[in-house]
Amino acid sequence: MNSNIPYKIYLSEDEMPRYWYNVKAHMKGGHEPFLNPATGEPCTKKDLSAVFCDECIDQELNDRDELIEIPEEIRSFYKMYRPSPLVRAYCLEKLLDTPAEIYYKFEGNNTSGSHKLNSAAAQAYYAKKQGLTSITTETGAGQWGTALAMAAAYFGLNLDVYMVKVSYEQKPFRREVIRTYGANVVPSPSTTTAAGRKILEEHPGTGGSLGCAISEAVEKARETPNCRYVLGSVLDHVLLHQSIIGQECKIAMDKYGIKPDMIIGCAGGGSNLGGLISPFMGEKLDGKNNIDILAVEPASCPSLTRGKYAYDFCDSARTTPLAKMYTLGCGFMPSPNHAGGLRYHGMSPVLSRLYHDGYMRATSVEQTKVFEAAVKFARCEGILPAPESAHAIRVAMDEAIKCREEGKKKVILFGLTGTGYFDMTAYKSYNDGTMTDTIPTDEDLQRGFETIPKCKANEGI
Amino acid sequence: MNSNIPYKIYLSEDEMPRYWYNVKAHMKGGHEPFLNPATGEPCTKKDLSAVFCDECIDQELNDRDELIEIPEEIRSFYKMYRPSPLVRAYCLEKLLDTPAEIYYKFEGNNTSGSHKLNSAAAQAYYAKKQGLTSITTETGAGQWGTALAMAAAYFGLNLDVYMVKVSYEQKPFRREVIRTYGANVVPSPSTTTAAGRKILEEHPGTGGSLGCAISEAVEKARETPNCRYVLGSVLDHVLLHQSIIGQECKIAMDKYGIKPDMIIGCAGGGSNLGGLISPFMGEKLDGKNNIDILAVEPASCPSLTRGKYAYDFCDSARTTPLAKMYTLGCGFMPSPNHAGGLRYHGMSPVLSRLYHDGYMRATSVEQTKVFEAAVKFARCEGILPAPESAHAIRVAMDEAIKCREEGKKKVILFGLTGTGYFDMTAYKSYNDGTMTDTIPTDEDLQRGFETIPKCKANEGI
Repeated sequence: MNSNIPYKIYLSEDEMPRYWYNVKAHMKGGHEPFLNPATGEPCTKKDLSAVFCDECIDQELNDRDELIEIPEEIRSFYKMYRPSPLVRAYCLEKLLDTPAEIYYKFEGNNTSGSHKLNSAAAQAYYAKKQGLTSITTETGAGQWGTALAMAAAYFGLNLDVYMVKVSYEQKPFRREVIRTYGANVVPSPSTTTAAGRKILEEHPGTGGSLGCAISEAVEKARETPNCRYVLGSVLDHVLLHQSIIGQECKIAMDKYGIKPDMIIGCAGGGSNLGGLISPFMGEKLDGKNNIDILAVEPASCPSLTRGKYAYDFCDSARTTPLAKMYTLGCGFMPSPNHAGGLRYHGMSPVLSRLYHDGYMRATSVEQTKVFEAAVKFARCEGILPAPESAHAIRVAMDEAIKCREEGKKKVILFGLTGTGYFDMTAYKSYNDGTMTDTIPTDEDLQRGFETIPKCKANEGI
Repeated sequence: MNSNIPYKIYLSEDEMPRYWYNVKAHMKGGHEPFLNPATGEPCTKKDLSAVFCDECIDQELNDRDELIEIPEEIRSFYKMYRPSPLVRAYCLEKLLDTPAEIYYKFEGNNTSGSHKLNSAAAQAYYAKKQGLTSITTETGAGQWGTALAMAAAYFGLNLDVYMVKVSYEQKPFRREVIRTYGANVVPSPSTTTAAGRKILEEHPGTGGSLGCAISEAVEKARETPNCRYVLGSVLDHVLLHQSIIGQECKIAMDKYGIKPDMIIGCAGGGSNLGGLISPFMGEKLDGKNNIDILAVEPASCPSLTRGKYAYDFCDSARTTPLAKMYTLGCGFMPSPNHAGGLRYHGMSPVLSRLYHDGYMRATSVEQTKVFEAAVKFARCEGILPAPESAHAIRVAMDEAIKCREEGKKKVILFGLTGTGYFDMTAYKSYNDGTMTDTIPTDEDLQRGFETIPKCKANEGI
């Protein structure tokens, strides 16, 4: 057992990465292209530029360059809250009496409470650089909304945040943080957009979903002058920005000679997991390692483990380009699971492709089990995790227990994406014993699959 | 201007302090002794041992040893969330266009959200070591309650937390964090103790105060077998544990050759400020520096700036030993100011003495001005501060602006004690423009002063 590792490894400022890692450069042609739903043809930069910032589109379409330089301004922003610590979970190892070495990369030590700030900073910077005055976005759990509000305030941009209604109501204080950073917060579905009004009509009383909030934010961006839409997950350029997590992690592990056997991360849209694994996956694709990479999703919204690999819309109002991804169908309405950030019908096209090609595995867990792990973790490691992050904790703990039972000394790394300070409604329901699990039936899934577009590219699926 | 300093200085594990710093060793006899209110004589260890842990009493009465070794178990606990970063406030300096160098020691990167964990860890450890099974405490803003709940969970102790009612109601999620760590939370004043029932009778509808919650927690500890009471501020041993802040700070500053001209901290009971300044103050008392040290308190509860230096009870039910301190009177009921952690009628005897002897200054600020500074700070430095901490930010900003106006290049250090994630009710009232300032009138103060005991030691005051 390697016990010479500090509790926490912080890189110094001059050890911090100067480059993001573009895993697509190792994927031999990346993944299937986005398609324009009107023509069925691959999206061009022009197709995307009405919605996204130009520089983000360039990054989105880049499957050539392994390393992309992080602009000085973004590195300055990162220095405010990064490097994040790579933590050796000595206390958890002791609690579980495991021969495994457990590490986690903790992204919660900033006011957004999560890794989301990594891409928010980049996207707000590129919007400003392009001369825009406003941006719009959606937020699920509220972490992305907070992150973008922080970045928008820093770079001087107006921001409208469409917040999934179930989170808006469960997390009044989260929305207040977003307001404190000067952004406008709208519960979604709302009556402020055609997309919102349509969904309210079809699903009165719905708690909303990320897909629906995306539709509203995209519509708002199209209708506001000098404005673009900013997405907090799923897309390749978001994973690229999040590669700062994996880059820091790899530098820290290399420095101490730590070689992970297994990397675990929760996966909603996939940006945290995609960012965490990127440089490790790049090597794996090149045959230089054989790390076991595991995505954890909620049993209530199991896109990888029970979804279909098909072209689908990224939003529920069917306004975005089509992406080839594991999906439950853009019309799938997840149950009001507390892990708001994992309530998404699809999955990052990069991760979907890697999963489809066998480079990573996936599993799903029920939320009562997740909160059980969260509370154990909080009490021994001192960090109260976000419910999303606790999905990874649950599986890391299970794997460490398996190591004890099998007498194996695995090195396990997981992503601790954020803190749960704004999730206390969910913790209260767990503490009170009133939390339940909701798992979609095969019929629920079938209804979702029927909303996957029946286009040419999906023939035979 | 010293621009070769990193944004954040983290000590490595082997640079971390192994000793707490006992400033009293430099105070030539410490401060006036605690008095037993029944006899008027200085308290003995025996007087205190019905309420406090033995080891904490030894530390309380120690004005001899400058350095006190931090036990291995506590250092292990500290490693979970320490070292805390010493941050160079580059963005704030730029915003204020000041020639001043601004640094802050940020204690909020742990689940209690504040510096409180530094003493909670120590006191829970000593309780466990003494063979106790339970501890009790009070909490104002909730940060101390959370901290002690974390430490009690870690060391395996039962815990009852009496939470000032105004905070209990304003911060339902804070209380839920405490519950998640397994502690029992009671709103104070409560009907569970004689002290609480008496206060409810005299002040029906009161929002409570720290003094009142202390009375309840002490009573509960006395009546529970194998149990002691634990205090989160004011007392010398708490300041001692908090000296880890100043110790880390000094090591980091010495390493980079940074010499502060001014140290600023918010002061409720005084533990954070006392801890932050301790090694610097030790040198100042020895004539080795002349750092300007400034305590900031809320205008609504101005114990240093408008209180009397007298012997008073530490609680409102008049059950504790008498301490010589700046006080508004143990019966003073502060207005429901949002900075719950600063709602205390008295002030640490160590700081009171140092203030009385002219080694530090004090000022008070109104909360609307405090929140104005908090929001500015959050938007440029990325950290959403606790209202308590924002008192120090307000004054640090004012001082930096003064430097600009006077063309002075001061080096300013302030203590950023914690985060405001559980203070969003207060931020909401600021964001909505409904926050007001309440400053006690001279008559309000007079009513408080009349509750200072008329004992022999107070003759002539």
